Amino acid sequence: RINSDRLWDSLMEMAKIGPGVAGGNNRQTLTDSDKQGRELFKSWCDQAGLTMGVDQMGTMFMTRAGTDPDALPVYVGSHLDTQPTGGKYDGVLGVLSGLEVVRSLNDLGIKTKHPIVVTNWTNEEGARFAPAMLASGVFAGVHTQDYAYARKDLEGLTFGDELKRIGWIGDEKVGARKMHAYFEYHIEQGPILEAENKQIGVVTHCQGLWWLEFTLTGREAHTGSTPMTMRVNAGLAMARILEMVQTVAMENQPGAVGGVGQVKFSPNSRNVLPGTVIFTVDIRSPDQAKLDGMRARIEKEAPKICEPLGVKCSVEAVGHFDPVTFDPTLVGRVRTAAEKLGYSHMNIISGAGHDACWAAKVAPATMVMCPCVGGLSHNEAEDISKEWAAAGADVLFHAVVETAGI
Amino acid sequence: RINSDRLWDSLMEMAKIGPGVAGGNNRQTLTDSDKQGRELFKSWCDQAGLTMGVDQMGTMFMTRAGTDPDALPVYVGSHLDTQPTGGKYDGVLGVLSGLEVVRSLNDLGIKTKHPIVVTNWTNEEGARFAPAMLASGVFAGVHTQDYAYARKDLEGLTFGDELKRIGWIGDEKVGARKMHAYFEYHIEQGPILEAENKQIGVVTHCQGLWWLEFTLTGREAHTGSTPMTMRVNAGLAMARILEMVQTVAMENQPGAVGGVGQVKFSPNSRNVLPGTVIFTVDIRSPDQAKLDGMRARIEKEAPKICEPLGVKCSVEAVGHFDPVTFDPTLVGRVRTAAEKLGYSHMNIISGAGHDACWAAKVAPATMVMCPCVGGLSHNEAEDISKEWAAAGADVLFHAVVETAGI
Ligand SMILES: NC(=O)NCCC(=O)O
Ligand SMILES: NC(=O)NCCC(=O)O
Repeated sequence: RINSDRLWDSLMEMAKIGPGVAGGNNRQTLTDSDKQGRELFKSWCDQAGLTMGVDQMGTMFMTRAGTDPDALPVYVGSHLDTQPTGGKYDGVLGVLSGLEVVRSLNDLGIKTKHPIVVTNWTNEEGARFAPAMLASGVFAGVHTQDYAYARKDLEGLTFGDELKRIGWIGDEKVGARKMHAYFEYHIEQGPILEAENKQIGVVTHCQGLWWLEFTLTGREAHTGSTPMTMRVNAGLAMARILEMVQTVAMENQPGAVGGVGQVKFSPNSRNVLPGTVIFTVDIRSPDQAKLDGMRARIEKEAPKICEPLGVKCSVEAVGHFDPVTFDPTLVGRVRTAAEKLGYSHMNIISGAGHDACWAAKVAPATMVMCPCVGGLSHNEAEDISKEWAAAGADVLFHAVVETAGI
Repeated sequence: RINSDRLWDSLMEMAKIGPGVAGGNNRQTLTDSDKQGRELFKSWCDQAGLTMGVDQMGTMFMTRAGTDPDALPVYVGSHLDTQPTGGKYDGVLGVLSGLEVVRSLNDLGIKTKHPIVVTNWTNEEGARFAPAMLASGVFAGVHTQDYAYARKDLEGLTFGDELKRIGWIGDEKVGARKMHAYFEYHIEQGPILEAENKQIGVVTHCQGLWWLEFTLTGREAHTGSTPMTMRVNAGLAMARILEMVQTVAMENQPGAVGGVGQVKFSPNSRNVLPGTVIFTVDIRSPDQAKLDGMRARIEKEAPKICEPLGVKCSVEAVGHFDPVTFDPTLVGRVRTAAEKLGYSHMNIISGAGHDACWAAKVAPATMVMCPCVGGLSHNEAEDISKEWAAAGADVLFHAVVETAGI
């Protein structure tokens, strides 16, 4: 078993960097807080005897050498960046449990055949720069590095410039590394494990996603002196599209979700009808046909909503991944580990996207999950117990050591 | 007749301060640009021999002395502040036409019995600090100065601090001045005069307004891993309230408008259902019963929309004025002036709020309007012709001189 006190202490220590306003964290990617988080993590890795590689996307690869010089490494990772009002565990648990695996191996004096590489992927959240899982996406060849560097935040700053600014552009070519296997441990971020009273989620699949960014163009006009019949009201069109997305998601139950997290009115003045409304629809399903069917329907119905209002509607897909099936052998190892350790477990489909989804394109990959209170995540009130954290880290430890070989 | 070239040149000169991004202006109240605009206006007033008074709300009163030491002044004013993406004429036309009235009197060597005071009211737009017409509201005793000083912009800066920062807190007690009459010349900001092919709007009334600021509290949660049934979706509630406001406004036709210009999602991240959505509903009607009826209905229906979604709904009125009837004697003088000058004219109800609405509480008041292209305002593309500008200024000149006496 891993050292649950040490794991928990590290989690609490990291949570001091980029504190939120309500007990959680605001450590968004490529901010000064992200830089500080990286430095703390690196100092712990140094103490654990790991050697660092950093690629041109800023992803940190912290290596514990193996005994077989020809064996490819086993990767264990997740992300240290957070949402603007994020929790203390989303991502962080996975990175620090990877470190805890290595620390425990050090304690036990165990050497593995394959090297173990604890990984902190850059910009998993996609909160500051869409899409999510950006660095792992470039690693897996899904995006070009140029595309990634050109991503902009709401202030217009680019990913490339901000990565340079915080001093974390490495020299490794992205995706040059080959992986023997990839493991990621994460909180569920949903309600199922807690409701079913299970300690471990054996993650067999991840649902797919589309992020559809709508740009609605109306006509800026005075809210008082512009008659109802003369309005080209992009805000009203937005409202109708939100309702339509809700309908589409509900008609695809079970196994689908749809919603909107980001809306921007311009000029956003109380007495001006918006000239432009930009917002992002987030739809997901583990069923590829359902997912693509929802996208097609939303893209077909939105213009029909806008047209009678005279509003111009354009859509751009700013994030996407297909549903993923994780590697059956690794999934089996996670299940076996949970059983051996006496932890209750069940199969689960990840509702959120993870770097494991992109890693799965280039290596056998899987995930371990633990419950979170009330299924709440992307909320500063996100919570887990120390025991939950430790159980998943134990399972991760066993599955990783099994895969890395002794 | 006034000097139309000089008026137009001054309009174009002022428009250079706080340029917008699309040919208009961003000279929001109490910004550095506002300060610069005030300085330019003051320099012109100095050249015209006016003496300045500034009150504790930063309103500028530029006085041309009268011949009768006991006569109360005739005020002519509007505002130099703009929307974030505003036009070059909204407000500015009224202030600079007031100046042009004085300049023309100087040219002609005419002395009036009553002094004439050209006025630039602070924060008419209400874009940066709600409510609109803030300084004239304090002047008329509708708001306290403490209330006004505590108004906050989106960054949390207060009106009082910003007024101090730009150095325009005067020492005059607000509202201490007594007015013989108040005139305001403004672009229509609506489509009627242009459609009816009239040069002059004789403004008989102004419609009333409510600004209702809604705060919807949902639960921040992950857009992917939160099942549809577990969502407390404040964004969806906002969409439904927008649709309801549209319905209420349409069911009150003719003579009513309703819409939403400002929406703020928090945390406004693509993969987080908003924990809070704040937005402002703007409803107006010249009919008091209709206006208050719309407010009551919206405030009754909004909670019914929120309740089944589990969303908490609170409403605060952040702006309000009752419908206004302007002074019949002054209205008659505007009409007579238009007739005498041979300008086509019609009676009109102001769709927008103006400082004249508050001035009307403490003095006989009225307005003059000119058409604007396509009825467009609160848009950088706002446009008028030089001839339209001049016709209204001519009418203003005659009505003011008639009232100030020779
Ligand atoms: N795990 C997680 O929240 N990832 C962010 C990408 C997503 O929205 O699924
Ligand atoms: N004239 C004008 O746009 N005033 C701002 C207040 C309002 O929204 O009516």
